[in-house]
Amino acid sequence: MRRIAVLTSGGDCSGMNPAIRAVVRTALAKGIDVVGIQRGYRGLIDRQYEMLHHQSVSNTLQRGGTFLQSARCKEMMSPAGQAIAVETLEGIGIEGLVVIGGDGSLRGAKALHERGIKTIGIPASIDNDIPFTDMSLGVDTALNNICYAVDCLKDTASSHDRTFVVETMGRGSGYLALTAAVACGAEFALIPEVEFDLDAICEILRRRFKDGRNNSLILVAEGAASAKEIADQIKDRIHFETRLMVLGHYQRGGSPTAFDRLLACRFGMTAVEALLAGESGKMIGLTKSEIQLTELDKVISEKTRPIDQMLVKLGEIMDR
Amino acid sequence: MRRIAVLTSGGDCSGMNPAIRAVVRTALAKGIDVVGIQRGYRGLIDRQYEMLHHQSVSNTLQRGGTFLQSARCKEMMSPAGQAIAVETLEGIGIEGLVVIGGDGSLRGAKALHERGIKTIGIPASIDNDIPFTDMSLGVDTALNNICYAVDCLKDTASSHDRTFVVETMGRGSGYLALTAAVACGAEFALIPEVEFDLDAICEILRRRFKDGRNNSLILVAEGAASAKEIADQIKDRIHFETRLMVLGHYQRGGSPTAFDRLLACRFGMTAVEALLAGESGKMIGLTKSEIQLTELDKVISEKTRPIDQMLVKLGEIMDR
Amino acid sequence: MRRIAVLTSGGDCSGMNPAIRAVVRTALAKGIDVVGIQRGYRGLIDRQYEMLHHQSVSNTLQRGGTFLQSARCKEMMSPAGQAIAVETLEGIGIEGLVVIGGDGSLRGAKALHERGIKTIGIPASIDNDIPFTDMSLGVDTALNNICYAVDCLKDTASSHDRTFVVETMGRGSGYLALTAAVACGAEFALIPEVEFDLDAICEILRRRFKDGRNNSLILVAEGAASAKEIADQIKDRIHFETRLMVLGHYQRGGSPTAFDRLLACRFGMTAVEALLAGESGKMIGLTKSEIQLTELDKVISEKTRPIDQMLVKLGEIMDR
Amino acid sequence: MRRIAVLTSGGDCSGMNPAIRAVVRTALAKGIDVVGIQRGYRGLIDRQYEMLHHQSVSNTLQRGGTFLQSARCKEMMSPAGQAIAVETLEGIGIEGLVVIGGDGSLRGAKALHERGIKTIGIPASIDNDIPFTDMSLGVDTALNNICYAVDCLKDTASSHDRTFVVETMGRGSGYLALTAAVACGAEFALIPEVEFDLDAICEILRRRFKDGRNNSLILVAEGAASAKEIADQIKDRIHFETRLMVLGHYQRGGSPTAFDRLLACRFGMTAVEALLAGESGKMIGLTKSEIQLTELDKVISEKTRPIDQMLVKLGEIMDR
Repeated sequence: MRRIAVLTSGGDCSGMNPAIRAVVRTALAKGIDVVGIQRGYRGLIDRQYEMLHHQSVSNTLQRGGTFLQSARCKEMMSPAGQAIAVETLEGIGIEGLVVIGGDGSLRGAKALHERGIKTIGIPASIDNDIPFTDMSLGVDTALNNICYAVDCLKDTASSHDRTFVVETMGRGSGYLALTAAVACGAEFALIPEVEFDLDAICEILRRRFKDGRNNSLILVAEGAASAKEIADQIKDRIHFETRLMVLGHYQRGGSPTAFDRLLACRFGMTAVEALLAGESGKMIGLTKSEIQLTELDKVISEKTRPIDQMLVKLGEIMDR
Repeated sequence: MRRIAVLTSGGDCSGMNPAIRAVVRTALAKGIDVVGIQRGYRGLIDRQYEMLHHQSVSNTLQRGGTFLQSARCKEMMSPAGQAIAVETLEGIGIEGLVVIGGDGSLRGAKALHERGIKTIGIPASIDNDIPFTDMSLGVDTALNNICYAVDCLKDTASSHDRTFVVETMGRGSGYLALTAAVACGAEFALIPEVEFDLDAICEILRRRFKDGRNNSLILVAEGAASAKEIADQIKDRIHFETRLMVLGHYQRGGSPTAFDRLLACRFGMTAVEALLAGESGKMIGLTKSEIQLTELDKVISEKTRPIDQMLVKLGEIMDR
Repeated sequence: MRRIAVLTSGGDCSGMNPAIRAVVRTALAKGIDVVGIQRGYRGLIDRQYEMLHHQSVSNTLQRGGTFLQSARCKEMMSPAGQAIAVETLEGIGIEGLVVIGGDGSLRGAKALHERGIKTIGIPASIDNDIPFTDMSLGVDTALNNICYAVDCLKDTASSHDRTFVVETMGRGSGYLALTAAVACGAEFALIPEVEFDLDAICEILRRRFKDGRNNSLILVAEGAASAKEIADQIKDRIHFETRLMVLGHYQRGGSPTAFDRLLACRFGMTAVEALLAGESGKMIGLTKSEIQLTELDKVISEKTRPIDQMLVKLGEIMDR
Repeated sequence: MRRIAVLTSGGDCSGMNPAIRAVVRTALAKGIDVVGIQRGYRGLIDRQYEMLHHQSVSNTLQRGGTFLQSARCKEMMSPAGQAIAVETLEGIGIEGLVVIGGDGSLRGAKALHERGIKTIGIPASIDNDIPFTDMSLGVDTALNNICYAVDCLKDTASSHDRTFVVETMGRGSGYLALTAAVACGAEFALIPEVEFDLDAICEILRRRFKDGRNNSLILVAEGAASAKEIADQIKDRIHFETRLMVLGHYQRGGSPTAFDRLLACRFGMTAVEALLAGESGKMIGLTKSEIQLTELDKVISEKTRPIDQMLVKLGEIMDR
């Protein structure tokens, strides 16, 4: 193998830069060229790429986002688009590809693998919704971002008789909201995986208030409800003053945490080693602290990861 | 003077704790007792207070919020309530009072002054809307909080063809939104002091997009508009994808910056010295880097602070 | 079981507060009283303790250090001291004890267990030198602290033709230095477990310089060498300008990371559950992402944890 | 004026990047080309420079250091070197130059001004040792960096009977150490401007210990003493355990604070406007919140800035 390519695709996250760096430096150490594809699969359609050298990735370890950029690319979902992508890769002599991204990106990786391009996927998604890995890139950084913002809010919360409603990311997955609730000491986490009963919540809020605990914190995964609506509803139903915080893309960025940097290094190095070992059509994952490979087929057909019941229990015991 | 009291009132902010600490330590160094009134003026009505010692304020310098807590207190607006407050203060032998808070808190301070309690005000309001001081406590910390969150967002923004709309605090004042827009490199700041034309903004967004600058950042002071509505409107009018971030009470908290700590030390020490010098009915302020006293009468009757035209100019030159 | 006690002992670290909180809230949820022993084992000798309520641990989740304080206690190493400790515990009706601390603290826990006090240990040590747990409390926070400081240094390093030498904690263990070197992109990590050859390092520095890479970063675990001496030696031997950073107790503090908070919650809850299940003389640990119990005997007699060879490999591939 | 140049020189600091950005964007808005000189005056000797466009400075506002890099340049101190610098500038049609740096850099600026190059200086030095400006670029960021590190230390300090000695930057100026001591609640600040008596300090430490205040914090400006020596001396004289922290280049880096970004914007815009107004041989400064110009002659011949007596007083009242 003399030349490989790397791309980042889908919603970006902290950890993508260190993963690119790890791919580049591992490949170079083994005498393999690396091409960086720009703007995800779009760069394969539009033929935008650059050679990556040792220095190309200097000072990227500590940067959020992805210097290769990311973009959506509908073309990649069609056989015609995939054919162009293969053509581009073959045209520049790529013998292996590393795809860093979430669910949709891994589907693209699988398509390229099936068309004969040796492809390895690296899971990156702050929602932590990718199966066959305990943690995806970006999750730890996003969690710490949420903690930082909620800690600030808590400095001030105790002075006020208010209910704070905070919206986190997580369309299909409540991982961030549920985990952050435990890590921040929030009283409630509303997540898409579990139905909630707003009347019951209001009842608890009212009981807490009677006990002198006059401020409460509710984390809402965007996939469970709109935090704005929850805040309005609570106001309507029990006339509590509510305050809203919608964290949005703040969660995606920021300098990657030590954990995300190390995970990115391990994922990136292993991806290159897997390509060299002749592997393809697989995703690198972290399972019980070990790096493992899983067939992309299996990853994609799996339903999302189950909720961690210990977190649910912790939330109930610690924060009510 | 043998005994003074200190209270924090209104919306809390970072810098209140170091200001209380400065009042306490300055007074103790001069042999004066200090009583901490709890939950703002409410503590004067409900007679909740505690003696503050040197150790009472240890490790408060670096904490957001106010350990004396704050609360709203309608009673304080009525002559009857004010009479109770005076009674409480006289009952515990208070000869001077330091009030740390915003506009409403300073009105309460003026009322107590007029009823014979020697009272000095310290301006604290993240909105920076108090006249006769260039900076209020909490402003610098709030600004840095906003910068941190928006920097995270910018890590990720460049990967996406999107318009980000961020809501900051500021009901009557656009100071935070305008200043943060310059400090963060936002393209637009919508503030209550200046009418805006959303069609014109959409036109500029469209022109930027044509020039290849496909992501934009709009800061919206809560007093100018709802960021959610601005985001929805832009989507409706020019079909740009928008993303929302509502920073809420995140802005109020967090460890105070060096600037806020130093300002709090200077304000707190000067407040005690002013009381000792026989002053009353005045607010401490920072004017052109000098500590100055202004009659509370003048502070309260003044319209809010004018917009800094240099910021407006900087925003236009740097970020479009 | 109606009453348990909790103490923090040895060098403190971020994560101790959330662990105390988890012990308290779990016990209270099960109807068990909790006594907080002050200043580690010293509080057992001096009989200093307090009842801990639900509110006692409010707003501790996000605080570094330990509000119960820690202290060294030589008396605890002698049978006489241990007897007093047992007497104190029995005198206040303690039926179970949770000890949060490092190696020495766990020895104390074992001694109390052998004297009939049901005792469970929680590993807390930023050095990550406790066997039978993949991570101890405080490690993740310390690592992120180091990353933050070194990132700041790297902003400026590229402007200067200098060799930066940074001293981290780690008397017997190079975990922090080695892991931080990978996470920060340092060229070298000097650790106590591996002999180093300063002449060889100087040779590499010189070769890097010839290749135009004129700044280098060396992390030194305090147990491997004095960073000051390394810096002086490099200057003497190859006349490179060196700059020193000694991170000291900065590494121990700061708001705990999300990881440390969650680990603390899991450890604390499990410790109480273990006591209730009749366990004693064991340490809670995290092994391959699972919470496990190990005999304190085994923990104490084990040599320290082996070096992670993947980190060594990552360091070599990524950063030279 | 059709073309200007900008360079950063001397010890770099946070705020240089936003200042370059402000120069570039202001000039471009006025239809003037901007050339970025690389590695300070060295780039004028070695003829290394690049055209700077609107995009060249995108995403630099939030970055520490200087993307134009900085370097020492002895040649610039000799007439021969200065002549080459002028030749380079004239060769690429530069009609005005903005120099961002400290004392030495401003001397270079003066030399070029005297040789007929229209030159404006912007003060950048974390030591805050440049006269005729209340604040230099980088000072506010450095102060906040120090606060962050010392706050972490303080989380842990209260658990231990120890004296912490922290070394800050400041060869000729104690500004950082003195200001940080107030902002962090340190008991002592040793600064080059004031002689200190270590025996007297040890006496106070001993007295504090007797009063039960068994941990103390001493900030030492590097120009006043070596923190290591102070720590060793205290141990020798009164047998207190001491712990060392040497902050080094950590202080120089990190994302610039809101204050430094705004100051950089104002300084950069004003520098370009000054050049356009025909000014030369002057430094931009901030005096009592107003932007002012001072002759470089006057800046260079002035002794350094006097100590702020209010800080000395605050330190004494608040922290002993």
